[in-house]
Amino acid sequence: MSFLDELKYTSDGLIPAIIQEEGSGRVLMMAWMNVDSIRDTLETGKTHFWSRSRQKYWMKGESSGNTQEVKDVAYDCDKDTLLIKVEQSGAACHEGYKSCFFTSIKDGEPEVTEERLMNPGEMYGKS
Amino acid sequence: MSFLDELKYTSDGLIPAIIQEEGSGRVLMMAWMNVDSIRDTLETGKTHFWSRSRQKYWMKGESSGNTQEVKDVAYDCDKDTLLIKVEQSGAACHEGYKSCFFTSIKDGEPEVTEERLMNPGEMYGKS
Repeated sequence: MSFLDELKYTSDGLIPAIIQEEGSGRVLMMAWMNVDSIRDTLETGKTHFWSRSRQKYWMKGESSGNTQEVKDVAYDCDKDTLLIKVEQSGAACHEGYKSCFFTSIKDGEPEVTEERLMNPGEMYGKS
Repeated sequence: MSFLDELKYTSDGLIPAIIQEEGSGRVLMMAWMNVDSIRDTLETGKTHFWSRSRQKYWMKGESSGNTQEVKDVAYDCDKDTLLIKVEQSGAACHEGYKSCFFTSIKDGEPEVTEERLMNPGEMYGKS
C-alpha cells in the first residue's frame, strides 16, 4: 500500500480522518490516524484511530460496541486529509448522539439540532 | 458570539473546518479557520479560511469565482472541529473536481472516482 508513504502527516505522524455515514451522508466525527491505524482500518474493515489526548491507539467501538464498518477510504488533493465512509452501529458520539456535530450556530448562539440516541452512561458498560 | 471563545484552537489559533455540500451531502474539502475567518464566514455568508501553507487569509473563490454560500455552521462535542454546509459554485477543488476527495483506495491502490468538472487552467483566469 504505497499510497501510505505519499500521504502527508503532521510532525507527530498523524493525519485527520473525517468519518461520514454512508447512505445518510451525515458527517459523524473527525479523529486522527497514524500509519498503523490506517493499515488496520483497511485490513480489518473497522475504523482505528490514534487519540492525541489519551496518547492511545484505539478501535472505534471497543468500549461502547458502536463500531464503524468501513465502506470507502478516500484522500484529498493535498494528501493531508482522509474521508472514510462507514456504516455506523448506534451512536458515533460519546455523548450519545448519532453525530458529534449536534450543535449548530443559529443567530450567533449554539443550538442542539439532533435527538440523543442513547444515554452516555449506557454506552460505556453502566447498563 | 461567545461560542468563539469556547472553541478549541491549535497553538497557532486555528481550527479545522469540514466543508460539506448541502443537498448532495458530498464532503468537498477540509481547510483551516481562525477566529477572524469564522466571524467573517458567519457575517458575510461566504466561507473564509486561513492558509497554513501560504500564511494568508483568503475567501474561498476569490481567485476562481467558485465561492461557497454558507447554509449551516456546526461544531463537534470536543469543540475542536467545525462542519460547514454550503452551496458550492462550480468546483471546490483547485484541480477542477467538485470535491477534493476524488481519490479512493481500491484493493490497496488509489483510484480517481470523480469526473473533472473543469480544467484547472480555466479556473484561475487563463480562460
